[in-house]
Amino acid sequence: MGRGRFITLEGGEGAGKSTQARTLAGALADAGLPVLLTREPGGAPGAEAVRDLLLGRGWDGIAECLLHFAARREHAARMIEPALAAGIWVVCDRFADSTLAYQVHGQGVPRAAFDAIAGAALQGLRPDLTLVLDVPPGLGMARVQARGEVNRYDRLDAGFHERVRDGFAAVLAAEPGRCLRIDASATAPEVAAAILGAVTARLLPA
Amino acid sequence: MGRGRFITLEGGEGAGKSTQARTLAGALADAGLPVLLTREPGGAPGAEAVRDLLLGRGWDGIAECLLHFAARREHAARMIEPALAAGIWVVCDRFADSTLAYQVHGQGVPRAAFDAIAGAALQGLRPDLTLVLDVPPGLGMARVQARGEVNRYDRLDAGFHERVRDGFAAVLAAEPGRCLRIDASATAPEVAAAILGAVTARLLPA
Repeated sequence: MGRGRFITLEGGEGAGKSTQARTLAGALADAGLPVLLTREPGGAPGAEAVRDLLLGRGWDGIAECLLHFAARREHAARMIEPALAAGIWVVCDRFADSTLAYQVHGQGVPRAAFDAIAGAALQGLRPDLTLVLDVPPGLGMARVQARGEVNRYDRLDAGFHERVRDGFAAVLAAEPGRCLRIDASATAPEVAAAILGAVTARLLPA
Repeated sequence: MGRGRFITLEGGEGAGKSTQARTLAGALADAGLPVLLTREPGGAPGAEAVRDLLLGRGWDGIAECLLHFAARREHAARMIEPALAAGIWVVCDRFADSTLAYQVHGQGVPRAAFDAIAGAALQGLRPDLTLVLDVPPGLGMARVQARGEVNRYDRLDAGFHERVRDGFAAVLAAEPGRCLRIDASATAPEVAAAILGAVTARLLPA
């Protein structure tokens, strides 16, 4: 069996990433593929412990970037890489692009610091396909408030969420071969169909 | 008042760093200098929380390096840099050279990954003087066992502690302007006198 494929879902608050990651993993499993469904920050025991630290208090921006990549490295080394090597497909709710969007574009961490940390932490690991679920921040925040789950990032101002969206737009522009924009203002079934269509076209042999 | 001076104490297990850091801070205070005595990993609330994570479980080597520098960044940004800017001298028990010695030389993390992470985390912060307390690992481990405090690192094999010592020797060779070897196999008062002599000669105006 060949190496598995690594698919990441990215986007701002209320874009529907978690729902769509579950739906995509189910569709791939229905197609007979072995699938690991996971999420960041977290996804491995040590990484979940770092997640608790990240969500529990405020951090210097560069320290926060280092913590995200410490959790990501643990997740990658213990879960993602072994799964891909075993031929398992990996569907991950958030990955490195979220740190670029939130910490660099949102919080002002220097891009050079991000690039240095990401290179050291990932050692070449890169998604085969990244789906950027794009919604206007106003719609995304309305969805978050409707479901009653507000975290530390959700409380930041509208300007922050606009900068995060600009960060994801920059990733889409810089890496069109890896990344694809999905209009996530549509209904959940419509978004799921667009995602499955993209995965089929890009990663599944005809 | 001018900027404070930043002094770090480094070395393997049982070298006497903590005792000597306290003694040095007391001597500087007796000389009328404002002194912050601190230690790593830790030294700031967020950094202490990362310390608990580091000591509580095993980590991938690069993840461990990222966690150490996340704690260090928090410590530097919230405690060390503001203290130095206020004219306070900082005496720190372990700093970045410990991560080089333990994670790169001891555990095999790639040097290029260390350099990238350290550069991003420290943003130019560098000790004015680093005192490397050198003891043969056999003597150091005998001291640790005599005082009945054994941590995760202390349980590693003799080869690990030899590689850590080689790592500190490499730092001494590479940066003689910043670093000074102190023979820590002598008695505590003898070591304290050597340290105070070095600090006086290098950092205090005649």
